[in-house]
Amino acid sequence: MKAKVYVALKPSILDPQGKTITGALHALGYDAVREVRQGKYFELDIDAASVDQARSLAREMADRLLSNPVIESYRVEVG
Amino acid sequence: MKAKVYVALKPSILDPQGKTITGALHALGYDAVREVRQGKYFELDIDAASVDQARSLAREMADRLLSNPVIESYRVEVG
Repeated sequence: MKAKVYVALKPSILDPQGKTITGALHALGYDAVREVRQGKYFELDIDAASVDQARSLAREMADRLLSNPVIESYRVEVG
Repeated sequence: MKAKVYVALKPSILDPQGKTITGALHALGYDAVREVRQGKYFELDIDAASVDQARSLAREMADRLLSNPVIESYRVEVG
């Protein structure tokens, strides 16, 4: 089963990488861009009996390894 | 307007980072995980008059800066 985990910095955390990308886009002429924030995502192929099991496994892995809960939040999508 | 750009390695490209994460998850006891592939995502705040304009701008930026079309593919979501 495919699970996707999206990890992003919490809104209150500064994102210097995003700021740099915003600057690069402005330099290319894309002045319509107000802000960019960068995150990661993981596509997991999980051997699970049900969608619920895959989702709970993915959440557990996101908590333990894929994200840093101090500065990041995550979202899980299964299916 | 918010646009999200998801960038992932093309399926034919090896993903050593994903392999490492798979190994780390197995070491933590998550043997149900068959494969992990890692990607990036960008949340763009765009000053656009319509969803279509935001989408076409996001696609253009993904082509020119956010992804490397030789080894990566991307997906854009607006709204």
